[in-house]
Formats: sequence, structure tokens, C-alpha cells
Amino acid sequence: MRTGILLYHHFSEYELSVALSVLRQGNQDIETIGLGDSQVVGEAGLTCVPDSTIEKVDVNELNCLVLPGCDDIGHLKDETRLFSFISQVIEGNSVVAAISSAPFLLAKAGALNTQRYTVGFTREQRDFIGIFNETNYIDSPLVTDGKILTAKGAFFKDFGIQLGKMLELDFNSSWYR
Amino acid sequence: MRTGILLYHHFSEYELSVALSVLRQGNQDIETIGLGDSQVVGEAGLTCVPDSTIEKVDVNELNCLVLPGCDDIGHLKDETRLFSFISQVIEGNSVVAAISSAPFLLAKAGALNTQRYTVGFTREQRDFIGIFNETNYIDSPLVTDGKILTAKGAFFKDFGIQLGKMLELDFNSSWYR
Repeated sequence: MRTGILLYHHFSEYELSVALSVLRQGNQDIETIGLGDSQVVGEAGLTCVPDSTIEKVDVNELNCLVLPGCDDIGHLKDETRLFSFISQVIEGNSVVAAISSAPFLLAKAGALNTQRYTVGFTREQRDFIGIFNETNYIDSPLVTDGKILTAKGAFFKDFGIQLGKMLELDFNSSWYR
Repeated sequence: MRTGILLYHHFSEYELSVALSVLRQGNQDIETIGLGDSQVVGEAGLTCVPDSTIEKVDVNELNCLVLPGCDDIGHLKDETRLFSFISQVIEGNSVVAAISSAPFLLAKAGALNTQRYTVGFTREQRDFIGIFNETNYIDSPLVTDGKILTAKGAFFKDFGIQLGKMLELDFNSSWYR
């Protein structure tokens, strides 16, 4: 079993980085997953090559999926293949962790109607986007509900550490001050 | 002018990530630089494609160079082309920032005989490696001396923020709690 890391255009490198490091410390295998075979350029300019794609990856091999934020997540609003991929992973009872703007993708996958969550959008932004369930929204840096972890972007260290705890990994959090 | 980001096998993604984000916030152009044309796999498993190489990059176009740490920096101990590249950048009066184990590369480039620095090695490790000038070593999370910035790995947020200040960039440090 391994952790899938979604990589899409303009993903935030720093929001993802501590989670990745905690997974590495805990000897958890990872597989980076693109929407297609192309290279992906992060928000701060790092060009990455995903190990696999949402078409090719075996969902049954994933015990976890990580969704980094990105500064223009609206470019993913019509990626229905991505939303059904995320749904499948959630139905498989995996841990799913989304930070900053990425809970938008959980909302699109239908997961936020039953789960409490946070997200890095203001009330006005959430209203404008129009797909967030306000009843389940919690104004907190980090929210864990069942197997779903969500966090605001600035709390990327806590996000990585909480992910490691949910996966019961052995790691040293003092690496990240 | 732009900032060069050295990418070598097993570079630490999280140690680099906040610095990258600060550079992006400050609209500083970046160029990732490999030792050769190959893809580079980070310490936590992210496969990256450098924009350029130490042979191809124009040193005169750099106002800054960032050296991420890595968990087995010893694999770079005979990379004399890398050390002379770093020397050239320092001679060009650029800001040079090295975190965690990466001040080893500054030592190899001859830069730590005249500059105060810190590094993520213990006294025993520094003695064993045998190239660190103990007179100039400071046991501090972060050391700035002239245009050289060094930091211990756990202080990667402070490292990124201090780099932004040295380059006089306009950025919001509350992105990183």
C-alpha cells in the first residue's frame, strides 16, 4: 500500500513539502499522480514528473491520497475524471488529506456533504464558488473528521504531522520547527 | 537577474520549499540548476527536471544561489565542477544561501574560511568530515555573514524568510506559520 500525491498545474510545493517528508521518514511508499503524462510545474516554479496518472494508478493500492493547494484551483473545475478518481479513493476507505484551496476538489467529489472540513477560502469566496456546505465548515487551522484531513495553507507543518499520525507512522516532528 | 536553485540527487524538498515560495511571492525569477541533464529525485521522492545545468547557466545572470540540504551530501564530495561553479557565484557578489548539510558545499568551494556560518552537523561529524573551519562556526539556527546565509534544516521557514529579506523582496511571511 502507498500514498498517492496528486500533482496538478501550479500545485503549492511548500504546502506539500512537510507531508512528503513525514511520509518519507515513516517509510511510507509514495506515488505522485498527474492528470496526464505531461510534466507539471508547481506554483513556485519547480518542474516535476509524476510517477503515474489518475488513469493508470491502481486505486486499490492506495491507503492515502494527498491533495496540495494551488493558487488557481479554478483551472480544475471541469476535471470530472479527477473528481471521480477522488471519490473512488474515498469509497476505498483511504485517508484523504487536502490543504489550502484543495478541499474544493473534495467538494467537487461530493465528500463535504457528510464530513466536517476547513478550507483556505473566506466566507465570501466560498459563497461565490457555491459548492461548499456551510453546515460542515469549521473555522480552524486543521480539521480531522473520520479519514478526511483538511487544513489552511499556512498550517502546512501541522498538516504533515497530523497526516503522519493518522497513518500511524514513526517520525520525528522536530525536523520542522 | 534571477535566483539559481541547485537540484542534486536527494535534495530536501521541504528545506527548499519556503525559500522557493518567498522568491515566488517576491516576483524573483528562478532557474533550477542540475549537475547534468538528468532528472533529479528529491529526498522524499519528488522527481524534478532542472531548467538548466551548471555548465549551461550564465553566472552573470544570477543575483542569488540557493543550496538545499540532502541526506547523503557525501555523494557530491568529488564534484569539483560544482565547487568551482559555487566559487564563481560567490566571487560575483551574489547572495548564497545554504541549509542543513549544504554548507558542506560552501566549505568545499572555499567560502567558509572567511565567513561565519552554521551547518546541520554535530562537532563530531564536522571533525570527521574534516573541512569545516571551527573558528567561524556559530551554533545558531541561522547565520548571516555578508552575502552568505546558512541555516540548520529544521529552521527552513526562517531560512526562506531571511533570504527574502536579504534580496529585499516584498512578501507576506504569515503564509508560513
